[in-house]
Amino acid sequence: MSLNANLTIALDVMGGDQGPFITISSAIMAISHQPNLHLILCGDESIIAENLAHHKISKTDLKSHKQLSLFATTQIVSMEDKPIVALRTKKDSSMRKALDLVHEGKAQACVSAGNTGALFSMAHFVLKNLPGVERPALISSLPTHDKDKHVFMLDLGANVFCDSHVLYQFGVMGSVMAEQVDCISKPRIALLNMGEEAIKGSDHIKLAALELSENKDINYVGFIEGCDIFSNKADVIVCDGFVGNVALKTCEGVARLVYEKSKATFKASLLSKLFGSLLKPSFKKLFKTMNPDQYNGASLIGLRGIVVKSHGNANSDAFFAAIMEAVKEVERQVPEKIKQSLEHGFSAR
Amino acid sequence: MSLNANLTIALDVMGGDQGPFITISSAIMAISHQPNLHLILCGDESIIAENLAHHKISKTDLKSHKQLSLFATTQIVSMEDKPIVALRTKKDSSMRKALDLVHEGKAQACVSAGNTGALFSMAHFVLKNLPGVERPALISSLPTHDKDKHVFMLDLGANVFCDSHVLYQFGVMGSVMAEQVDCISKPRIALLNMGEEAIKGSDHIKLAALELSENKDINYVGFIEGCDIFSNKADVIVCDGFVGNVALKTCEGVARLVYEKSKATFKASLLSKLFGSLLKPSFKKLFKTMNPDQYNGASLIGLRGIVVKSHGNANSDAFFAAIMEAVKEVERQVPEKIKQSLEHGFSAR
Repeated sequence: MSLNANLTIALDVMGGDQGPFITISSAIMAISHQPNLHLILCGDESIIAENLAHHKISKTDLKSHKQLSLFATTQIVSMEDKPIVALRTKKDSSMRKALDLVHEGKAQACVSAGNTGALFSMAHFVLKNLPGVERPALISSLPTHDKDKHVFMLDLGANVFCDSHVLYQFGVMGSVMAEQVDCISKPRIALLNMGEEAIKGSDHIKLAALELSENKDINYVGFIEGCDIFSNKADVIVCDGFVGNVALKTCEGVARLVYEKSKATFKASLLSKLFGSLLKPSFKKLFKTMNPDQYNGASLIGLRGIVVKSHGNANSDAFFAAIMEAVKEVERQVPEKIKQSLEHGFSAR
Repeated sequence: MSLNANLTIALDVMGGDQGPFITISSAIMAISHQPNLHLILCGDESIIAENLAHHKISKTDLKSHKQLSLFATTQIVSMEDKPIVALRTKKDSSMRKALDLVHEGKAQACVSAGNTGALFSMAHFVLKNLPGVERPALISSLPTHDKDKHVFMLDLGANVFCDSHVLYQFGVMGSVMAEQVDCISKPRIALLNMGEEAIKGSDHIKLAALELSENKDINYVGFIEGCDIFSNKADVIVCDGFVGNVALKTCEGVARLVYEKSKATFKASLLSKLFGSLLKPSFKKLFKTMNPDQYNGASLIGLRGIVVKSHGNANSDAFFAAIMEAVKEVERQVPEKIKQSLEHGFSAR
């Protein structure tokens, strides 16, 4: 990783089901892992102090800390807050202030495990879309059959419906993510469809396919079906937010179902009970990595700033992974690259 | 099961990856399981004779057989045939003739493991929609966490996009299926959405929710997310064909991924390799039942006749299950009940 003197990330410390208990632990892990990283902890001053004390960092230590600083806020966006209400009434929340810091150029990215809808609305309002971007999208990576490869998928729920040009832009943005974050040259871009044949699917998907195949900078590989999401046939899979959200959550549901049924299989006989108990830890680990939503952060891309969303019930490893994802996107200047790619795509057409 | 003197089902013997080798075996299983069942075997005369011979049924036996008869056809719809081409040029195919027999009242249902798109187009053309039905839908049942319960899901790919009234009709048709086929009184109907809150999703989903909740005969329980498809929170889950197809195929993809990763887990050490090999048969069985598309038949409902689609690579158990599904739908008079429910729904509104 290249050293970057100005690597500053604003954390929404109060977000997530367990708030500072998790986020502060992850922050401590992140600064020790990344010596040039500076984290601005946005949240309730006394709660943050209390949690830092568990890590042997006193209030005085914090004042002179080289990698941590505090931004005291008075409000918290709850998981129940409606996006529009949070946007209007929670202007001094940890989430809002973390985004404001990115907007003001005081931080280069924001990481939050808070209310997804509120984060989207606030990020969109505070940071605004990149020039030419019609809609920001939520992108995350999923595992594949090849253990060293994963696949990016977008949009995972930021937009209910997307027309062909929006899908095209998602393809371009996804291509930049795979190229910059995963260092894949000429990432394979596919559109999620109900069949692989060119005649399948809606008109706007067919139009998006046409638009993607006409952009010479994009390695468009065609339609892909749900059963092949994990087959390593593409580096980026594009769909609208409704379909992406259903597909991602269905993954979660199936993984949970298989896990429960496996447990029952393990318990079916005394013999399998014995063997099952010995294999259980490996299986638990497997199902944890199978849940991409919980394991990896998801990024909101297409905005004039970097926003990484961690799962509400992320543990400290998962929230740490989200911070490191933000670090990567800062280092690779993802928003700037997306802007360039979209401009180039427009002029090339 | 009630005895029905006129229980006749037309089989597309030539359909499916392995054709008569599978379908004839399943037919033999079905007639021995259901003594009042008569099967019309539609397909190539000599190939059928050859396959029946493996089951010790000669040409002469067939002529006087009480439960089997032959309908010789000269064409086969291949898996590569485009629906429109099959419809226009394969009028003497086993698939088409099986549907024609239903249309002519000589059979009460048709079962095929052939080309899905061609079957849809032909069934729609030959049988026509029930009065008032805007679109037929593909419905199948999926497993849930509760081993004695499954959940019906529709549409699984017959329609790319569905407006609110079509989704409403799917709810009514799904309710009839759950009530008649599974004997569930007041089946719980849910709409698949990207969140449970009423404000989530597209306008046509919100309108469908309104329409379903206004029909007093329907037990509408609200929105459901992808992660809860298998949670036994609903008896019927309604979505458009694009979303349903992606969700179903994503299930298949996740199940396959988990299976592969489990195998790797089993092989990770000598110890787990040993235990794994002992547990492998149970796991194989588990993953087989986890693949609803392959295990159960899917029914095309909303037509003036019963059509059950078995998976292209169905084995003889799976194709047998599809025949028995057709038997159930004939006995419970599903099309007639759908017609009544839709008429009642319209007049009640």
